[in-house]
Amino acid sequence: MQAPEVEFTAPDDGYQKRTEELFYAMPFVKLLGMKIAGIGPGWLDCELSNRPELQQQNGFLHAGVIATLADMSAGISAATLVGPESNTLSAEFKIVLLRPGIGERFIARGRTIKRGRKLSIAESWIYGVTNDKEKLVARGYLTLVIV
Amino acid sequence: MQAPEVEFTAPDDGYQKRTEELFYAMPFVKLLGMKIAGIGPGWLDCELSNRPELQQQNGFLHAGVIATLADMSAGISAATLVGPESNTLSAEFKIVLLRPGIGERFIARGRTIKRGRKLSIAESWIYGVTNDKEKLVARGYLTLVIV
Amino acid sequence: MQAPEVEFTAPDDGYQKRTEELFYAMPFVKLLGMKIAGIGPGWLDCELSNRPELQQQNGFLHAGVIATLADMSAGISAATLVGPESNTLSAEFKIVLLRPGIGERFIARGRTIKRGRKLSIAESWIYGVTNDKEKLVARGYLTLVIV
Amino acid sequence: MQAPEVEFTAPDDGYQKRTEELFYAMPFVKLLGMKIAGIGPGWLDCELSNRPELQQQNGFLHAGVIATLADMSAGISAATLVGPESNTLSAEFKIVLLRPGIGERFIARGRTIKRGRKLSIAESWIYGVTNDKEKLVARGYLTLVIV
Repeated sequence: MQAPEVEFTAPDDGYQKRTEELFYAMPFVKLLGMKIAGIGPGWLDCELSNRPELQQQNGFLHAGVIATLADMSAGISAATLVGPESNTLSAEFKIVLLRPGIGERFIARGRTIKRGRKLSIAESWIYGVTNDKEKLVARGYLTLVIV
Repeated sequence: MQAPEVEFTAPDDGYQKRTEELFYAMPFVKLLGMKIAGIGPGWLDCELSNRPELQQQNGFLHAGVIATLADMSAGISAATLVGPESNTLSAEFKIVLLRPGIGERFIARGRTIKRGRKLSIAESWIYGVTNDKEKLVARGYLTLVIV
Repeated sequence: MQAPEVEFTAPDDGYQKRTEELFYAMPFVKLLGMKIAGIGPGWLDCELSNRPELQQQNGFLHAGVIATLADMSAGISAATLVGPESNTLSAEFKIVLLRPGIGERFIARGRTIKRGRKLSIAESWIYGVTNDKEKLVARGYLTLVIV
Repeated sequence: MQAPEVEFTAPDDGYQKRTEELFYAMPFVKLLGMKIAGIGPGWLDCELSNRPELQQQNGFLHAGVIATLADMSAGISAATLVGPESNTLSAEFKIVLLRPGIGERFIARGRTIKRGRKLSIAESWIYGVTNDKEKLVARGYLTLVIV
C-alpha cells in the first residue's frame, strides 16, 4: 500500500457517522458482506470475506465483486470529504485486474487524491489476504461528481 | 443500441454451447440472477431482473452490478470468438455511469469490436427497461487477454 | 462509423462559429496541423495529414497524437452543446489503440453521447485513411466537466 | 511522488542504452522536445520545457501533450523490463486531468506496477514545475502488450 500523497481535513464532526451509515445503507453491500475496516478524512478501508458465491468459474473473485470493492472504497473515501448537504456519485471508473482474485478475504484501500468543487478523484488498491499476507490483485481509478 | 460495426465468424460449431456453459458456471452470476438473452459470434445480450438487494441507498442499481453486467456481456462476447483451447480474461475495463440505474429489468449488450491474437476489445451498452422501453444507463469498455 | 444514438439541438445560432474559433485558438492544434472537417450539434469531425514528425519509431502515428485527435474531436463535440457563458473541460479520457496508426491522413469523429448539467460524455472514432479507405485505428472515451 | 511499490531487476546490461535509443528514435518526441531525466529498471522520468505551441487556448499545457508525457514515461518504464528480442506496445490508457497544466517545465514519472508475460501495467505522475516546486497536474494508467 502506498502512503497517501495528500492529507485532508474532515468537513465536520459528523462525517464518520454519516459515511458509515451511507456504506451500510446499500443493500448490495450487505448481500456481498462488505464491512468497513477503517475510515478517516479522504480514505476508507473495507473488507470482504471470500466465499464461493462471489467467484467466477475458476474459484477466483469475480471481476464484478472487485469492481464493487473499488467503487465502495474509493467512492466512500471521497464521501468523507463532503458536508451533510452534498453527495458524491460515481461518474466513471477504470478497474485493472493485476492478478487472479485469490484470498481468504479481501481488503480494498480507497484514497481520494483530489477533492475539487465539482469533481473528486479517488483511487483504490485491492488486496487478497491469505495468512495475513496481502497481495495486490487489482487497482481502481474513480471520477466522482459532487452534487 | 448501435449496430455492430464488425461481423465475426464463429470459431467452430461448439462456441455457443461452450460460452453458455461458461456464463452459467460462475456462482456470482447465479447470485445476481443474470441470464443470457441472445448470443452470436462476437456478441452477447444478457438480462437481469431488478430487486432491492442489488441496489444502493437510493434504490438505483449498484455500480458494482452495472460493472458486472458490462464485464459479463462484453467479456463473453469476446469469448464466443476463441476456440476450446483458449480463454479470454478481463484485463481492464472502464465503466461510465450515464444515468441512475432505474428499471424493472436491465439488459446489457456486449459487442466485440476487435479480435486480436493477444488482446480482444469489447464494448457494452447497459439499458434499464421499464414497460419495454429501454433507456441507456451505462457504457462499458473492456480489454481482454487471450490465453 | 456508427450512427449517432442521440440527436441534439444547438444551444444558439452562434455555436458553430464559437467552437470553430475555440478549435483554432489552440497553438498545439496548429503545431500538429489539425483541421475541422465537419461540425454540428453534438458532433465534430477533424482531420490530420500524416507526416514523419507525428510518428513513433516504426513510422506509425504516435499514441500522443491519437490521444490529441480523440480529445479534440470528442471534446469539441461536447463544446457545441453549451452556450457562450459556459465551457467544457476534459476531466479524464480513455484511449484504446486498436491497430497501428497507418494512413495518408487521419480522421477523428467525435460524438457526444450524453449532455448533462455538470458532465458531458463523448466518444471518438479515429480512422487512418489510405486511398479514401477508412480503417478504425483507435477509440476514445471522454468525461467533460461543464464550467 | 509516491515511492515505487515494486522493485524490478533489469533484464540485461543493455536495457538502459536500448530504451534511451527507443525514446529518442520517436520523431514526435523530438518535435515536443521531451528528454529523459532518469531511468532504471521499471521506471522512467522524463521532462519537457513549456512553450506556447504546446498549449491550448488558455495557456495551459494541451491534454494531448499531457497524454504523450504519460504514454512515454509509463510506456518506456515497462520497456526497460523486456529483453532485446521483445517490445512493449501501448494497448490502452486512461488520463486524469487533475489541475490546469501550468509550469515552467513538466516532469512525468512513469512506474511499472506489474510486469506480466503478456501484459505490463504502468502508471504515471505528471507534475508542473515552477521555481523547482512540483505540483501534480495529471495521472496516467497504461496497459501495455509485450510482443
